[in-house]
Amino acid sequence: MRMKWFAAAGLSLLAMGKELSYTDKGEMVFPEHYREWVWLSSGLGMSYDATAQANSDLSFDNVFVSPEAYRSFMATGTWPNGSVFMLEVRASHNRGSINQAGHFQGDLEAIEAHVKDNGKWAFYSFGKETKPGRLFPRDAGCYSCHEQHGAVDTTFVQFYPTLLKVAQEKKTLEEKK
Amino acid sequence: MRMKWFAAAGLSLLAMGKELSYTDKGEMVFPEHYREWVWLSSGLGMSYDATAQANSDLSFDNVFVSPEAYRSFMATGTWPNGSVFMLEVRASHNRGSINQAGHFQGDLEAIEAHVKDNGKWAFYSFGKETKPGRLFPRDAGCYSCHEQHGAVDTTFVQFYPTLLKVAQEKKTLEEKK
Repeated sequence: MRMKWFAAAGLSLLAMGKELSYTDKGEMVFPEHYREWVWLSSGLGMSYDATAQANSDLSFDNVFVSPEAYRSFMATGTWPNGSVFMLEVRASHNRGSINQAGHFQGDLEAIEAHVKDNGKWAFYSFGKETKPGRLFPRDAGCYSCHEQHGAVDTTFVQFYPTLLKVAQEKKTLEEKK
Repeated sequence: MRMKWFAAAGLSLLAMGKELSYTDKGEMVFPEHYREWVWLSSGLGMSYDATAQANSDLSFDNVFVSPEAYRSFMATGTWPNGSVFMLEVRASHNRGSINQAGHFQGDLEAIEAHVKDNGKWAFYSFGKETKPGRLFPRDAGCYSCHEQHGAVDTTFVQFYPTLLKVAQEKKTLEEKK
């Protein structure tokens, strides 16, 4: 039945149960197929620092979520245990091929993960590597910022336009700025 | 066997054979699950017009490809018949929630498709609708621009960083600017 549901929803089978696993040192195993997961949105040069330079070394942020978590969110507006978000940071370029204005994406700069396990969220850093990711220390700024500002269960659903509508419908959006 | 392959590759089952179909008027049926397809890249305000204003009404371009076409490209560096690209254009916003600089994505502005069928490519326009898409006339600029500048078989692989590496490895990149 579960496989049938996945097939009907057009979602990945491989990903089931393999999105989140750890080494015996407690590092997160790199989810090598994350670019085939469900993409949520991309931003360019986003910053909560108003003094950030608008045009210096802008990076794109691409966010992907594991297929099973996506399915659950579309049905409930909430994230189940085992949810994995992958943040991919890429360089931006202005001129290239026929492009004369605006920005397109270039080389990988960093990969980070945000995962929910046993009811708790954690962040892992992979850098540019596919080796297991290191846990961000619990006092790192990512934890407090996501807790204070993430609109659904510490995640930035306010920046994912298609999920935002689901959270509004399901009334799971928290009043955060 | 084919289903097994799809499962092993983590790709969609639903999408098989349903990505590209037409009404009896020759319009393209809207592929309602395209946001669960494989995302290729997003650009912001891209233009081949050097006089384009850098900061006025910038839009994001998000490109998705049908899972079966993606699988084929990763194996061969080429696009099979039945390949479907979906271009989603969204508004960009600068200030919102905690964001003070840079751009995040907003409302849908337009959806277009680029499809390969019987060896020929065609473009369809959906606007903001999920109704069947109208064929762009053959003298529309999209055809000549993609033919002249698309780096692989009229597609802009030069702007999709992960596919660009595959095309380089498979030696399917055409010498275009």
